[in-house]
Amino acid sequence: MPLALLAGDAEVAGILFVMLLVFAAAKLLAQISEWLRQPPVVGELLAGILIGPGVLGWVQPSDFLTVLAELGVMFLLFRVGLELEDFDLGRIGFTALAVAVGGVVLPFLAGWGLMAALGHSQIESVFVGAALVATSVGITARVLADKGLLDARASRIILAAAVIDDILGLLVLAVVSSMARGKVNVLELGLTAALAVGFTLVVAKWGPRTMDLIVPHVGVRLKAGGGEFTLAILLLFGLSLLAIYAGVAAIIGAFLTGLALARSASDHTHDMVAGVSELLMPFFLLGIGLRVELGVFVQRPTLILAIVVLVIACLTKLVGCGAAAWKLGLGDATRIGVGMIPRGEVGMVVAQIGAGLGVIPADTYGVVVFMAIGSTIIAPPLLNWSFRGVEAPAADVEA
Amino acid sequence: MPLALLAGDAEVAGILFVMLLVFAAAKLLAQISEWLRQPPVVGELLAGILIGPGVLGWVQPSDFLTVLAELGVMFLLFRVGLELEDFDLGRIGFTALAVAVGGVVLPFLAGWGLMAALGHSQIESVFVGAALVATSVGITARVLADKGLLDARASRIILAAAVIDDILGLLVLAVVSSMARGKVNVLELGLTAALAVGFTLVVAKWGPRTMDLIVPHVGVRLKAGGGEFTLAILLLFGLSLLAIYAGVAAIIGAFLTGLALARSASDHTHDMVAGVSELLMPFFLLGIGLRVELGVFVQRPTLILAIVVLVIACLTKLVGCGAAAWKLGLGDATRIGVGMIPRGEVGMVVAQIGAGLGVIPADTYGVVVFMAIGSTIIAPPLLNWSFRGVEAPAADVEA
Repeated sequence: MPLALLAGDAEVAGILFVMLLVFAAAKLLAQISEWLRQPPVVGELLAGILIGPGVLGWVQPSDFLTVLAELGVMFLLFRVGLELEDFDLGRIGFTALAVAVGGVVLPFLAGWGLMAALGHSQIESVFVGAALVATSVGITARVLADKGLLDARASRIILAAAVIDDILGLLVLAVVSSMARGKVNVLELGLTAALAVGFTLVVAKWGPRTMDLIVPHVGVRLKAGGGEFTLAILLLFGLSLLAIYAGVAAIIGAFLTGLALARSASDHTHDMVAGVSELLMPFFLLGIGLRVELGVFVQRPTLILAIVVLVIACLTKLVGCGAAAWKLGLGDATRIGVGMIPRGEVGMVVAQIGAGLGVIPADTYGVVVFMAIGSTIIAPPLLNWSFRGVEAPAADVEA
Repeated sequence: MPLALLAGDAEVAGILFVMLLVFAAAKLLAQISEWLRQPPVVGELLAGILIGPGVLGWVQPSDFLTVLAELGVMFLLFRVGLELEDFDLGRIGFTALAVAVGGVVLPFLAGWGLMAALGHSQIESVFVGAALVATSVGITARVLADKGLLDARASRIILAAAVIDDILGLLVLAVVSSMARGKVNVLELGLTAALAVGFTLVVAKWGPRTMDLIVPHVGVRLKAGGGEFTLAILLLFGLSLLAIYAGVAAIIGAFLTGLALARSASDHTHDMVAGVSELLMPFFLLGIGLRVELGVFVQRPTLILAIVVLVIACLTKLVGCGAAAWKLGLGDATRIGVGMIPRGEVGMVVAQIGAGLGVIPADTYGVVVFMAIGSTIIAPPLLNWSFRGVEAPAADVEA
C-alpha cells in the first residue's frame, strides 16, 4: 500500500481521481467543440453523457458532484453579475418582463395542450407544461461570457428576463405542485410571490449603492485574508441563502450579488472569482449530462414524442420571447428568443419533482429530460449564429 | 415552504448555510486575532474548536467539510509553490535534509522515551513518537504567506525540510504501523521509500523546465476556458494523485506543481489560484479545530501528561531542527526550528491511525490531539516573533 494512503489520503485519492476525470473530460470535449467551431458548453454537456451512466458509466452522479455543480453555477452567475457594471433593471425591466411572460405562457400552454390532446392526465400535462417554462440562464450566460458579449443589449435583456422567468417558473411549479397535492392556497402563493419579487427588486435596486459605500472601506479595515474577496464570498453565500428563503433560486441571489459588487470590486477580486468559477464550471455543465440515462429512449413512440416536445419547447420560447421583444428589431428579437431556449438543469428538476409526486410516469420523465438536454445542446450553436457580427459595446472585455 | 425549496434547492440551502457559517466564523476570529496582533490562523483554528463539537456544537465534522479542507490545503501549497520562482532544492537541499532529520530523530526518541518511561506499552510509545515526527507545513506556509515572507531564506529551508519531513514521517508511520500489525517487511519499505523520494526529486528537478517549454504554447492552442488555468488544474490534480500513489502526501504533489509552474504562470493564473485558495483555506484551518473534543481532558493526570508532551513536542523540533541549521546563525536557526513546530492535521492523522489499529487508547489519543492542536496554536505567534524585522528579498510581494 502506498505510504500516503496509510496517512488518510485514501479518500482524498478517490475524490481527486473523480475530479480529475470530470475536469479533464469536460475540457477535452470543450476543446474538440472549439475546433469544430461549436460553443464549448456543448462539449462539456456531451462529456457528461459520455462518461456518465448514459454511455461509459465511469462516473456516477453523487451528492459531492451535485454540490460542486450547484456551487459552480452560483459562481458563474456571480461572475456574470460582476461583469455588468451598469445593469439597470429599471431601464430594461418592461421589455424583460414582457419577454419573460411570453416565454412562460406560450410554452406552458403548448406543453399542456399537446400532452392533454395525446390523452395524458390533466395533472401530468400541466407538469410537462411547467417543465417547458423553465429557463437555464447558466447555459446562455456561459455562452455569452465565452464570447465576451454579456454587455450587448440582447444579452442584458436575456439575463433580466431569466431572473423574472425564474420567479414566474417557480410560481408555476408551486401552483402545479399544489394541484398535484390536491389543494391550492391562493393567499399563500400570493404572499410567497410578493416575497420573491420584493427580495429581487430590493437587492437589485439598493445592492449596488450600498456596496459603493461599503466596499472602499473594507479593504482598509479588514486585513485578514484579503478583505474585499472575503466580503464578496460572505455576501454571495448570504444573499444566495436569503434568495432561497425568499422563494427564488440560489443562482438569482448569486447574480444579484455580482450586480451589487460590479462597480466596486477590484480586478483582483474579479480574477479570484474567475478562478473559482473556472474550476467549478465543468462540474455544472458535465453534471447535467451525468443525469441522462439513454436507456429511456429505446421505445420508438417515446422517442418520437420526445422529439416533438423538444421542437415545441424550442419554437414556443423562440416565438413567445421573440415576439415580446419585437420592437427591438428582428436581430435582437431572435437573439433573445434563442437565448431563452435552454432548459438545462431547471427543466430536469421540474421533471424530478413531478416524478417524486408520482404524477409523471417514467416514460414522460424521459421525454422531459430529453427536451431539457436537447434544448440545451441546440441553443448554444443557435446563439453563436444569431450573435454573429454583434460586438460588445464596452471596451474592457475580459479574457 | 419557500418556492425555491420546491425546486430542489433544499440541499443547497443546507450546504450553503454550513459553508457560510464556517467561512464567517473563521474570518471573524481571524480578524479578532489580527486586532490582537496575532496571526489569523490562530483565530481560524480556535473558530473550529468554538463552533465544533468541542464547545458550541453548531457544526459537526462531515465528509463534505473534510474534502473542502483537503482541497483547501492542496490549493494553499499549490499557491505557495507558485510564488517561489527560483526555488532550487539542490542549493538548499543539504541543509533542508539535516533540518528534516533533526526534526524527526529528536521528537521521535523523546516521545517514545517519555511514554515508555511512564510505563506505556512499547507499541503505544513508538506511535506517540511517530505523531511527534509530523509537521503540518500548511500552517507555517500560511503564516509566512500572510506576512509576504515565503521568499526569505529561512522560509525556503522550512518548506524544503517540510517536504523531506513528510517523506520521513510517512516512513516512520509505515514502520510503526507494520510493527503494530506484527510484521515489518524491510524490502517493501525500502522500495516504497525509493519511489517516494524518486517522485519528489524528478518532479522538483524536471518540472519547472518542462513547464517553461509547454506553458507558453498552451495559452495560444487551447482557447476553451482559459488554457493556462486549465493546464494548471489538470497538473495539480494529476500530480497530487501521483504523489499519493508514489507514497507522499497530496499536498507535496500540489507544492511541486506550484514550483513547476512558478516561472511560467501568468499573473491572471496566480490570482485565479489565489481565489480558490482563499475560498477553501478557512475550511482547512477551521476543520482542524472541528476535530477537537474538549471532554477528553477532564481528568487531571491526562491534562498534565498532555501539557508535558506538548512542551516536549515544541522543544524537540525547535532544538532538533534549529541545531541542524546552526551554521545559518541564531536568527535563521530559531526561525527554522519554530517553523517546524506545528503538527496540525498530520499529527492528528497519526493518532487516528494508531487508534484505528487499536494500539493507542482513548486517553493517549486525547493527549496526541492536544499536542497537535497546541503546537499549531503556539507556533504562529512564535513565527511572528522570530521573523520580526525580516524582509522578503523579492520586491513583488503579492497582496
